[in-house]
Amino acid sequence: MTPRGRHFFANPGPTNIPDSVLQAIAHHTVDFNGPDFLEIYDACIAGLKRVLRTKQHLFMYTGSGHAAWEATLANLFSPGDRILVIETGHFSESWGSMARDLGLQVQSLPADWRRGVDYGALSAALADDRAHAIKAIGAVHNETSTGMTLDLPRIRAALDAAGHPALLMADTISSLGSIDFRMDEWGVDAAVGGSQKGLMLPVGFSFTGVSEKAMAAHAKSTLPKHYFGWTQMLARRHRSFIGTVPIALFYGLRESLRLIEEEGLENILARHHRLAEAVRRCVRHWSGNNGPQLFGLAPERLSDSVTSILMPEGHDAESLRRRVATMNVALGGGLGRLGGKVFRIGHLGDLNEPMVLGTLGATEIGLKLEGIPHAAGGVDAAMAYLAETAP
Amino acid sequence: MTPRGRHFFANPGPTNIPDSVLQAIAHHTVDFNGPDFLEIYDACIAGLKRVLRTKQHLFMYTGSGHAAWEATLANLFSPGDRILVIETGHFSESWGSMARDLGLQVQSLPADWRRGVDYGALSAALADDRAHAIKAIGAVHNETSTGMTLDLPRIRAALDAAGHPALLMADTISSLGSIDFRMDEWGVDAAVGGSQKGLMLPVGFSFTGVSEKAMAAHAKSTLPKHYFGWTQMLARRHRSFIGTVPIALFYGLRESLRLIEEEGLENILARHHRLAEAVRRCVRHWSGNNGPQLFGLAPERLSDSVTSILMPEGHDAESLRRRVATMNVALGGGLGRLGGKVFRIGHLGDLNEPMVLGTLGATEIGLKLEGIPHAAGGVDAAMAYLAETAP
Amino acid sequence: MTPRGRHFFANPGPTNIPDSVLQAIAHHTVDFNGPDFLEIYDACIAGLKRVLRTKQHLFMYTGSGHAAWEATLANLFSPGDRILVIETGHFSESWGSMARDLGLQVQSLPADWRRGVDYGALSAALADDRAHAIKAIGAVHNETSTGMTLDLPRIRAALDAAGHPALLMADTISSLGSIDFRMDEWGVDAAVGGSQKGLMLPVGFSFTGVSEKAMAAHAKSTLPKHYFGWTQMLARRHRSFIGTVPIALFYGLRESLRLIEEEGLENILARHHRLAEAVRRCVRHWSGNNGPQLFGLAPERLSDSVTSILMPEGHDAESLRRRVATMNVALGGGLGRLGGKVFRIGHLGDLNEPMVLGTLGATEIGLKLEGIPHAAGGVDAAMAYLAETAP
Amino acid sequence: MTPRGRHFFANPGPTNIPDSVLQAIAHHTVDFNGPDFLEIYDACIAGLKRVLRTKQHLFMYTGSGHAAWEATLANLFSPGDRILVIETGHFSESWGSMARDLGLQVQSLPADWRRGVDYGALSAALADDRAHAIKAIGAVHNETSTGMTLDLPRIRAALDAAGHPALLMADTISSLGSIDFRMDEWGVDAAVGGSQKGLMLPVGFSFTGVSEKAMAAHAKSTLPKHYFGWTQMLARRHRSFIGTVPIALFYGLRESLRLIEEEGLENILARHHRLAEAVRRCVRHWSGNNGPQLFGLAPERLSDSVTSILMPEGHDAESLRRRVATMNVALGGGLGRLGGKVFRIGHLGDLNEPMVLGTLGATEIGLKLEGIPHAAGGVDAAMAYLAETAP
Repeated sequence: MTPRGRHFFANPGPTNIPDSVLQAIAHHTVDFNGPDFLEIYDACIAGLKRVLRTKQHLFMYTGSGHAAWEATLANLFSPGDRILVIETGHFSESWGSMARDLGLQVQSLPADWRRGVDYGALSAALADDRAHAIKAIGAVHNETSTGMTLDLPRIRAALDAAGHPALLMADTISSLGSIDFRMDEWGVDAAVGGSQKGLMLPVGFSFTGVSEKAMAAHAKSTLPKHYFGWTQMLARRHRSFIGTVPIALFYGLRESLRLIEEEGLENILARHHRLAEAVRRCVRHWSGNNGPQLFGLAPERLSDSVTSILMPEGHDAESLRRRVATMNVALGGGLGRLGGKVFRIGHLGDLNEPMVLGTLGATEIGLKLEGIPHAAGGVDAAMAYLAETAP
Repeated sequence: MTPRGRHFFANPGPTNIPDSVLQAIAHHTVDFNGPDFLEIYDACIAGLKRVLRTKQHLFMYTGSGHAAWEATLANLFSPGDRILVIETGHFSESWGSMARDLGLQVQSLPADWRRGVDYGALSAALADDRAHAIKAIGAVHNETSTGMTLDLPRIRAALDAAGHPALLMADTISSLGSIDFRMDEWGVDAAVGGSQKGLMLPVGFSFTGVSEKAMAAHAKSTLPKHYFGWTQMLARRHRSFIGTVPIALFYGLRESLRLIEEEGLENILARHHRLAEAVRRCVRHWSGNNGPQLFGLAPERLSDSVTSILMPEGHDAESLRRRVATMNVALGGGLGRLGGKVFRIGHLGDLNEPMVLGTLGATEIGLKLEGIPHAAGGVDAAMAYLAETAP
Repeated sequence: MTPRGRHFFANPGPTNIPDSVLQAIAHHTVDFNGPDFLEIYDACIAGLKRVLRTKQHLFMYTGSGHAAWEATLANLFSPGDRILVIETGHFSESWGSMARDLGLQVQSLPADWRRGVDYGALSAALADDRAHAIKAIGAVHNETSTGMTLDLPRIRAALDAAGHPALLMADTISSLGSIDFRMDEWGVDAAVGGSQKGLMLPVGFSFTGVSEKAMAAHAKSTLPKHYFGWTQMLARRHRSFIGTVPIALFYGLRESLRLIEEEGLENILARHHRLAEAVRRCVRHWSGNNGPQLFGLAPERLSDSVTSILMPEGHDAESLRRRVATMNVALGGGLGRLGGKVFRIGHLGDLNEPMVLGTLGATEIGLKLEGIPHAAGGVDAAMAYLAETAP
Repeated sequence: MTPRGRHFFANPGPTNIPDSVLQAIAHHTVDFNGPDFLEIYDACIAGLKRVLRTKQHLFMYTGSGHAAWEATLANLFSPGDRILVIETGHFSESWGSMARDLGLQVQSLPADWRRGVDYGALSAALADDRAHAIKAIGAVHNETSTGMTLDLPRIRAALDAAGHPALLMADTISSLGSIDFRMDEWGVDAAVGGSQKGLMLPVGFSFTGVSEKAMAAHAKSTLPKHYFGWTQMLARRHRSFIGTVPIALFYGLRESLRLIEEEGLENILARHHRLAEAVRRCVRHWSGNNGPQLFGLAPERLSDSVTSILMPEGHDAESLRRRVATMNVALGGGLGRLGGKVFRIGHLGDLNEPMVLGTLGATEIGLKLEGIPHAAGGVDAAMAYLAETAP
């Protein structure tokens, strides 16, 4: 049966889409080489660069976030090159796995998923690499499987302190437009992002912001590529996209950029932080009575776009998710090795207080109905925080 | 600025519209006399009769709910005819005022708005009318200004007991599809409804379900009419609507009837009752500490489609509404003499648990921020009830 | 089966709706008394007055065009008042019939439907009415059943020349936004219009532009009214609409006004004239070999929003319409006494050259397939004209 | 300025999208791992296999048509492998170029673009390859730059006759759902397709139908891959897509498959042929007086989804396209070396008679206005053919 009422999509990936963006996407087809579309296209490229906070290069792909990962690797490296991937969770593992499939050597910097990496260990690894075999560091800015972030300026500082020439690659898929990110200021060489998170669009395009330094690396890269090839793209009018441009998504992007610029990036980040903190207050409250707790143990690293919540021992996150789904609320599940142990609440994109409270309320009802231990009153804690911090 | 996140429309009139109905309405224009449309039209008429629970007559108008009121009066009566309007609140007053403007005599059966009519007084009024001057009783089934209902079978019984031939006219605008209503079984002679409430459509069409007995009265009616004229309508293929048919709304109605029949009227009524009761549990909790309280004082008469909430003395409902609006939640205001004293929460149509909890949560935050006395924890009370009664 | 390809709606009533307007209408519900909506509302009222070219009064109704007719009559007259209706075709007959139903005396000024009224006869009728019993003249500006227009300034001049105080009421339903109309400049006292033609919206609201002189007449009017009552409306914030405002249509109207003002009324009228003339060139060509011919015989009176086409004797317009419908093109049928004898091509609203050519092309194929005599090459004649007059 | 009237998108790539598909795509986000979505997903996979006429394997990618090309190459081959690409036009060149970029050896079988390949030369090339160095033949089923098709069964027969084990790869991007294609029956080993043509969807996903024989080749392939990796995909629940699934497009695909199955593939192909032939009749007529002519010179190879039209010497196709664009009709331009010399009319997907006639009509007007020699009356020729062949 068609569920009644609005769907509450609180799954951290992809994200809910504003009605005006949905309507913008439902656009009849036009000539993607025609002057009317090109005007929109060029304005979108400029707007997306402003969101990335870069004045350098931007390459776009029809593809999901993983496409942009692969494009970035294929354009920067040659077979056998070594990259250092900082372990953060499921997505750092995926990135490593992809790089190996493409013929790269992957050095993993291990980390406890709940506490996050030891930045000292990163400095040590860089110091150890006297030969500069490490061509790049891969850092997942916001790891949606754990709800933890990496401190990119600190990684930049470690590279600088070590005088290490490795490129800094950041996965901003679930941070861009939700969590502060500044490509040029932070010295990020390759910033990987996608349409389906903070840009509030469906899955469909992804992109890499590319520094001049990375462009120099690209010139020497020999991994085979064409669909993702930056050099091939530079020969085209659109300077991105091999083949047909995803026209409809640009109408959507124009609208989402309008929404973003209307609200202002600073205000958007503040809104995300406030709503995220409301979720955390709720979960911290629930954690009494041996209830579900925040997966992340390092408070300063907790994500403002997604919260991972660890179930009490012996309780299945999937049962809870199914129960909450009967109230038309979609929570995220645990990814990879966290399957069944963790559930996740996405709080990014087009979100406001009642959406968060409705999601938390349904979840608290679900905890009760599933007989999962918890301290009741989490929603109250969230409400108290929201009242205290009302604009 | 465009508000962020989904709008929570908790204003009892009109109501939120499901996405699939919105899309259905966004239909290109077609010939309303063509065979493809007529097939849809006829199916909608049949479906709407099932919702009204009638096998008698149905006349539809391009117009709002007030249009159907006026149509009903104009088609049933002659200048100087007397009708008895049961006082329920703002809308019974409006109905009376309209009838007077049309040249009818209006006898009001007075009632306390918070307690509702004394059915004994109704029986007494009927008994008093030995000459049967009263041609009809006008009863607002669900008074959205007060959040109170009338017991239509009891009114029918009073008529029958008195052996009084007056027609029974019911305003089902805010009850149909949300609160149990059975036109034929309950002996209602004229049932007035509109598109914009339980049918989950925009404002645009309204209608009267008409009994055979009422059709006989119509035959003698001399009030001038044409646009609303039932006799004129019977001469047309559509047997409703003078002039162009509101085509787009029929595509919407087809979808809303599909949703209604998919869920089933019994299930819809049960859902409305449960969500309404959750709202009432919340408000009853808030009423501690001299907080806002249920406007209606007769528990068995409280509406399952809207709750009216009386502000504590000295506090302005409009300030609260403005505050809650900053969280993208629209509460209803007090109507007529209740302006500023009452706010209302609509809970009808396409609604689920998190929508209700989000609305109540934002409202409780608003109470706090506006310094309005209340017992915190209303949302918890609602959640507890929803957990207890989970399907 | 769902027909393939875009529907060509060439039926003069209602009209095709631009995609952007359809999307605008598919808007979630908002509080029609809230400040955000009221800002849109007020801007729409101002914009609609600019389209009507009036600075006087405007009253709006949830209803179809007939609702605005009835509202206009009910607000201006008292039982037994006489109005003079200029015969133009099906819609002047309908207007007369409505007026009689409301208790007015209707004096018809007869006219040949194919040639249009003799303006001299109008002057004579006014001169005859020395007692000024005629309270108003009812003139259908553009008669969609015949595809003929009335010269409103000439009617105004006849009134002035006769020194006759009758009000001038104009039905602009199918002319406004398509054919030049200037309420204030032309001395029109009541201009009746609707959403579903030149405003490119669905059926849903209609309105009357009202002069100061007509407001004075309104003050003395005793016909019963409430839903349509101007005085009742003036007591409301919206100064129009009794009951719920048709919210969604205002989002649509905002967009259609944006389109209208972007193109400019003068350009819109020129576009309509050019596309209408292309249709006429086509029909005139077809009329060779005893083919279908223009219904209207007075070239200077032919409508720029709809063309009525008379079938050759012995051929059924409905067969042709059914045939053309198999190509997903909806032609208009003959109304009233013209049923079966006439078909109509609407060419108003959101229209361009290929839409007209596609419609004419399918119609010419239909003529051939149905064995209806005609001179082939009508589409060529239309194309030649469009080429000559290309901007 | 917003152009008036419906946009006529007659550019062969991508294609126009039915309103119901556009609406389906404008769907709120859901969990792509949740049971409700998976049910839709699985049904779509099954439906897409029916369109491909295969019971073998299907792998899908978030990406454009070029992504599916690259995926197919990367999954089937190892560095240095040789493939034989049959020259057809711009897209066979692109395919070759991509293959070279990926490290393959590309042997081109040259052909005159206007006449198409000599199948005898193909047999000769296969016979020459006694060592079976050619691992696969790449055949563009429908070359949209030239409007010419390849006879895939004949290519299959040439392989069989030669006893050559090369795989047969077919690019069906602009043929699938428009021109007869039967993967299993015709022994195609890899069928590359995309969302944006006969499936009537926006650009967004592409896919490869894969035979058992090709799966065996895949097992030995060593080209690096991950995002496009079939083996990686088989480890996932969706058995396609690395990363997030393009959710919205599946709602669209469900609707487009519904439309396709409602009409029936046979009827769809017949409709395409008829409308394509109408375009050809028109162009053949124009070609009198040294007018524009069909680019393709082999009648039996002309495409039913797109027609390429060669401008008369000394006339610029781009001027014509700009002129026709003023009537809101988008023609396709010449690709690659055909730029300026050719324009193209797409006639695939959701199309009917008046859409074709409107497009041809605007084009004929454009020819006249641009002073391009042609025999007037092309639209008449198209109409005559459509009348003769009316269902």
